[in-house]
Amino acid sequence: MEKIDVKIKAVKERTYPILIGENLLDDAYEFIRNVTDAGRFLIVTNNTVYSLYGDKMKDDDADFIIVPDGEEYKNREILNTIIDKALKMKLERKDAIIALGGGVIGDMAGCAAAMYQRGIDFIQIPTTLLAQLDSSVGGKVAVNHKLGKNVIGFFYQPKLVLADTNTLNSLDDRQFKTGLAEAIKYAFIEKTCNAGEDFNLFEFFKKNRDEIYNKNHKILKQLIKMCCILKSSVVNQDEKEKGLRAILNFGHTYAHAIEIVTDYRYYTHGEAVSIGMKLIFDLAKEIGLISDKYYNDSISLINDYGLITKLGINPGKEIFYDAMLSDKKVKDKKIRFVMPVREKEVRFYNNIDKNMILRGI
Amino acid sequence: MEKIDVKIKAVKERTYPILIGENLLDDAYEFIRNVTDAGRFLIVTNNTVYSLYGDKMKDDDADFIIVPDGEEYKNREILNTIIDKALKMKLERKDAIIALGGGVIGDMAGCAAAMYQRGIDFIQIPTTLLAQLDSSVGGKVAVNHKLGKNVIGFFYQPKLVLADTNTLNSLDDRQFKTGLAEAIKYAFIEKTCNAGEDFNLFEFFKKNRDEIYNKNHKILKQLIKMCCILKSSVVNQDEKEKGLRAILNFGHTYAHAIEIVTDYRYYTHGEAVSIGMKLIFDLAKEIGLISDKYYNDSISLINDYGLITKLGINPGKEIFYDAMLSDKKVKDKKIRFVMPVREKEVRFYNNIDKNMILRGI
Repeated sequence: MEKIDVKIKAVKERTYPILIGENLLDDAYEFIRNVTDAGRFLIVTNNTVYSLYGDKMKDDDADFIIVPDGEEYKNREILNTIIDKALKMKLERKDAIIALGGGVIGDMAGCAAAMYQRGIDFIQIPTTLLAQLDSSVGGKVAVNHKLGKNVIGFFYQPKLVLADTNTLNSLDDRQFKTGLAEAIKYAFIEKTCNAGEDFNLFEFFKKNRDEIYNKNHKILKQLIKMCCILKSSVVNQDEKEKGLRAILNFGHTYAHAIEIVTDYRYYTHGEAVSIGMKLIFDLAKEIGLISDKYYNDSISLINDYGLITKLGINPGKEIFYDAMLSDKKVKDKKIRFVMPVREKEVRFYNNIDKNMILRGI
Repeated sequence: MEKIDVKIKAVKERTYPILIGENLLDDAYEFIRNVTDAGRFLIVTNNTVYSLYGDKMKDDDADFIIVPDGEEYKNREILNTIIDKALKMKLERKDAIIALGGGVIGDMAGCAAAMYQRGIDFIQIPTTLLAQLDSSVGGKVAVNHKLGKNVIGFFYQPKLVLADTNTLNSLDDRQFKTGLAEAIKYAFIEKTCNAGEDFNLFEFFKKNRDEIYNKNHKILKQLIKMCCILKSSVVNQDEKEKGLRAILNFGHTYAHAIEIVTDYRYYTHGEAVSIGMKLIFDLAKEIGLISDKYYNDSISLINDYGLITKLGINPGKEIFYDAMLSDKKVKDKKIRFVMPVREKEVRFYNNIDKNMILRGI
């Protein structure tokens, strides 16, 4: 088992462990009771995950709530049903909410924990690759609105992240790839900014393509660990996204707009991210920020992993631009892009010409 | 103008000013722009307050949202309309939400600010006595649910509290008294626990009854200042209510249940609090915790100010007890009471007999 201790500088005494390993679900409550005094638990999950892992999490002190699966259900209405359930079971302030599932479940369970009785303990048990290496770490939780992605939410840190890599075996190809898109994002992040670590994830991806696709657990554990360390290093420096943390949204300015204009139904989050990263590299190349080699190496990696890079719909440029304007990084009505420049360097740009931005749409 | 700087120990660099004085609304944006870089503002208010003070707050950079007046509308549905409005006006992460009104407005505007884009700047402009001396200070914001009072909400500190005492002139007798009930609560708090100050509020109330009822601004300013200092002293020691802060809920365990069983419609919050305080003193006397003199002095003060002390409805004991169990201080299904014992001493009791608790209902 791998253990990472995430520290948040801005707040005293706020630190929590990420545990990564096989068969961790078998001893879930042992790990959980180490970090919380909760007497009872509300476990938020969906039908698919419940049928696979519900049995392992059954306990006299735990109630389940099954919510519908998919980014299009990550909204206030479903969030309210979680809070109503907590109230009906008279969950108390010292009790805890557990997220058992992917990023959507983690986001909604986290929002409910942040809102219930002004905040109760929150445990993340991510069961998808995307959630294990990205969304369960860092404390960002949110729900969507038809006018914006993740526009309602919180910085709310979990007490524990429990990543059982066995759960990755049940992912289908599409779900697995959506996680890989975010993982490859970390390769770009590491290549383009100084996150304080030197894993050379880019090379790791080039070298281990087959092992990763065969779900070699040793390699996946390494990958998840490196991504979690990179993310928590960035988050530790900038929990509330005053600066550096925005790098984690590499490719996401386009990705969120893609999700909004397709009502969160057409692409998975990772698919939107890989398209978004391609668009950002195109833009960076077009403006002349990066060399041909840098561009080609990056696009090759995305292609090697068979990720989607082409937007298969035509949303209309104005509609797309309007969706981009709902991004939380927009300041004074200007869209703020995180752009690669050269090795270990990234810059923020907020004055890119609208036609240039929309060139690939 | 009086200025109090509220510090929150638990979080680095978190401090905000409370300004108390006459005519502060005339220079509102000057004070506001001192504490925030917001480019635009969403002002949450109700019809009554808007018609009285809306003109003073009009600005090219400010939009208003008018929400219905009353505790029974302090719910998720109305909160959602505030967030929808912020999204529609494309409020950005650096912008701010302003509460212009009483406690209900402050609670809902604060929740919206806490939830919007993971938290944006929040300004409190309380216009009732209750909000100026109690609810706008301390960072507790919440909405109600039919299953519990203030059960959905946050600890979310404002950037500024601007209390213009002129606004108190427009309060009717009932609204004014609801504020006095919370103010008298501070007299009991000061008498019963060590909040770190020594104002002798109890004597202040005995001495200044007529001045207070005549809305003598010098006296009211003093009163608001003392209550704010007492509250912020307690909050500074215990922002997240791990212990001491629960004292601020003196009388509120009964009060919240009264509000729940009457659907938040029948009594104002302050009326429920004065009934709740009377019930707590009765209980303390019955159990033998306090002397007759302590009891008589306390009840006399409540009566001197003409506050309601008798529950005018019969909710049924079981229904009432069930409502009490939804209190956020309930732990292991036991109701936790803050009880006076003797001068400067208060204790928490969680094993009081159910029949004894419900004796006065």
